[in-house]
Amino acid sequence: MASIKPSLAKGTRDFSPVEMDKRNHIYNTLKTIFRKFGYAEIQTPSFENLSTLTGKYGDEGDKLIFKILNSGDYLSKAPEDLLGSKNSTSLISHISEKALRYDLTVPFARYVVMHQNDIALPFKRFQIQPVWRADRPQRGRYREFYQCDVDVVGSSSLLNEAEFILIYNEALVELGLKDFNIKLNNRKVLSGIAEVVGKPGLIVDMTVAIDKLDKIGLEGVNKELLERGFTQDDLEVLKPIIELGGSNEEKLSSMREVLSSSEIGMKGIAEIEEVFDYVRKFGRGDLLEKIVEVDITLARGLNYYTGCIFEVKTNEVQMGSIGGGGRYDDLTGMFGLKDLTGVGVSFGADRIFDVLEELNLFPTEGSARTKLLIVNFDSNLESYTLPLLYQIREAGIAVELYPSAVKLKKQMGYADSKGIPFVLLVGVEEVESGQLSLKDMKTGEQQKVSIEELIEKLK
Amino acid sequence: MASIKPSLAKGTRDFSPVEMDKRNHIYNTLKTIFRKFGYAEIQTPSFENLSTLTGKYGDEGDKLIFKILNSGDYLSKAPEDLLGSKNSTSLISHISEKALRYDLTVPFARYVVMHQNDIALPFKRFQIQPVWRADRPQRGRYREFYQCDVDVVGSSSLLNEAEFILIYNEALVELGLKDFNIKLNNRKVLSGIAEVVGKPGLIVDMTVAIDKLDKIGLEGVNKELLERGFTQDDLEVLKPIIELGGSNEEKLSSMREVLSSSEIGMKGIAEIEEVFDYVRKFGRGDLLEKIVEVDITLARGLNYYTGCIFEVKTNEVQMGSIGGGGRYDDLTGMFGLKDLTGVGVSFGADRIFDVLEELNLFPTEGSARTKLLIVNFDSNLESYTLPLLYQIREAGIAVELYPSAVKLKKQMGYADSKGIPFVLLVGVEEVESGQLSLKDMKTGEQQKVSIEELIEKLK
Repeated sequence: MASIKPSLAKGTRDFSPVEMDKRNHIYNTLKTIFRKFGYAEIQTPSFENLSTLTGKYGDEGDKLIFKILNSGDYLSKAPEDLLGSKNSTSLISHISEKALRYDLTVPFARYVVMHQNDIALPFKRFQIQPVWRADRPQRGRYREFYQCDVDVVGSSSLLNEAEFILIYNEALVELGLKDFNIKLNNRKVLSGIAEVVGKPGLIVDMTVAIDKLDKIGLEGVNKELLERGFTQDDLEVLKPIIELGGSNEEKLSSMREVLSSSEIGMKGIAEIEEVFDYVRKFGRGDLLEKIVEVDITLARGLNYYTGCIFEVKTNEVQMGSIGGGGRYDDLTGMFGLKDLTGVGVSFGADRIFDVLEELNLFPTEGSARTKLLIVNFDSNLESYTLPLLYQIREAGIAVELYPSAVKLKKQMGYADSKGIPFVLLVGVEEVESGQLSLKDMKTGEQQKVSIEELIEKLK
Repeated sequence: MASIKPSLAKGTRDFSPVEMDKRNHIYNTLKTIFRKFGYAEIQTPSFENLSTLTGKYGDEGDKLIFKILNSGDYLSKAPEDLLGSKNSTSLISHISEKALRYDLTVPFARYVVMHQNDIALPFKRFQIQPVWRADRPQRGRYREFYQCDVDVVGSSSLLNEAEFILIYNEALVELGLKDFNIKLNNRKVLSGIAEVVGKPGLIVDMTVAIDKLDKIGLEGVNKELLERGFTQDDLEVLKPIIELGGSNEEKLSSMREVLSSSEIGMKGIAEIEEVFDYVRKFGRGDLLEKIVEVDITLARGLNYYTGCIFEVKTNEVQMGSIGGGGRYDDLTGMFGLKDLTGVGVSFGADRIFDVLEELNLFPTEGSARTKLLIVNFDSNLESYTLPLLYQIREAGIAVELYPSAVKLKKQMGYADSKGIPFVLLVGVEEVESGQLSLKDMKTGEQQKVSIEELIEKLK
């Protein structure tokens, strides 16, 4: 076979040992917290039947799904006219019947429907797996990236929403973040606003415009609202809503006034208040003062969410949202299982990685790394070093003997580049005295230790 | 969108919470041991450039690689003659430039070559990721399955081989297996045999035939050897080798006699002896008596391995090999980096899963599962149960409050189906007395406990 210069497929990444340590730090932190809240892990296959995925993400989304070519003589049943006219779009279904997972939500819906007779409701699951999108790669955007989703289906209780606030808070605090916000909105509030303005049909246009407040300001939003079919009078009604300020209590109070005539709007406010009430009962009313922020401009995934909507942002680093989610009332409807309510949130693991990196928040000593390198001075000493190596490992400590007696400098360089914190120097003198020379790679200090002291120190 | 009845893509599986617990038990056991021996985790992307994978697995392997269709108007540059003649094979390179990982070895080789300036040799890595093959699915064979590979490149020391014997033993013992064998051979021994017979060019034919001894017996092997170009005289020379018996020492002794005239053969024997010597120095000579078995018929991956060859079998369950590996001297040559020696082994996680399942060796209490369900009798009690819930979680215990006050039977059923071992019954009486009723779901026993006692018990 010809020797080729290897490269990565566009938009994909290798993860080195150091990067894996860091990624596992994030995943393990999240998993531990998810489990503490009663969520259990599932996994779904990397590829699904194309028909399972098609039509779930809009036309743009469909284009970004990676399709897998059928095996064998895949052209044999392809219609000649489609081949002749080079009709890429129409030909797909004839040459591809599988596609890579685009997100974790649709496979989860499929899972729930297929296993509905085996699972106890409410079903609380988390899922941390890669997804693939044929996006144009750019800084921070990859064609393969991990999603971390945590959802519960089959429970309408707003206790779940309150717990997601606790989960977000605990996870981000545990990861070392100090200044972040969990933004909260409710789709019913948005419906209420559209109703009060008298234009329920324009709710999507309204929220798309309001969503841009941060970027284009009130004037820009008003201009866009006018273009999208609202009147100057509507803008007057909307103004206090769009410019809502003050504490959460003040915001809710203003909203109650504006939405008093809308049943659905008032229901949305009541839901937000009930979530807050749960958080207070948990003894974490402090979060409502400092972390949680009612944000009426939050409208992500509107076609989808039916109740509370979440979005999480860090204020320590310039970065888009690092998490989000909400309640949906018809997740599994697409697969024929109606009226199953659910709520879930997602953690943007790749963005959180970048944030922790920028803030230097990863643990300096990877728990997964080798703790000790035993220097190999002379293969004749192996009758001493091998039982020693065995004994240290038996104590559960990650340790290596350099596999050959090369120059000391090379062995130290190995320890250094691998981030091994301690090196043990065992020469003839050490073998005779039983006092081993332990070198701390960070400080450069060297001390004599017995085997027992060594194990105690490294444990 | 139309409602469709969902199904899994052929040859793929969902993993439920219970299955994930079990799979994680295997992965975590392996990872802990790999790390203890100084191996660090890496991950490579799920898809690679098609050119990276093509030609590495033989013609049959190439056919089993899942190709990913190019995005967008993928037919635009497809040659019209190939479309017209429906030439599936030749068209592939025009409509697909990416493919799913077929194993972890080739991506690892690519990784080493691409990152050769960043990694310190010897480079010790493990990798646990799914691979995909377009095989016809059957019992125990899937189109998506996990490989667990552990390799070191850049060290010719046979200490590595000895440590793989320790790793296999420790992992399988830790997983609960009691009767298994690690079979050991050396490619150089096989070369020596072919040399002694005077037919070095027939080494592949010879080993393919010898490899079948278990299945077709000596007579069958002889018949096949004759068909493949060996003479009756050759069979006489080969007989003691094929029928090699007794202890490892006896086998090595016979081999030394037969191969005394072959330099390479004697080198192979010396390598096996050196590995044994390392194992003895580790204080684990017992493994050479009970677990490790020199097996001259072992010839897996012959085109590939250049030194020691490993294969692991369990004797407790009817099952193919649950692991294997060996030394290769030119892994990265395919990507232009010559003379980098390596040795590695693999664990068949899916087969090990089946073995543990059949022998009932999975831990009964999944460490990942919810430990306690607090029954929700009345939402009015939530001012009591929510702080309690919070307090128990703060102690690091996985606990849930049933999210609504439905019938007790339903809540108990939930705990039961989710495998939650304890249920806490908190009614008005319990709130007043501070003595909570804790029910053990396995024994059915119920006892009164204070909050402190509860936390102590569950920790």
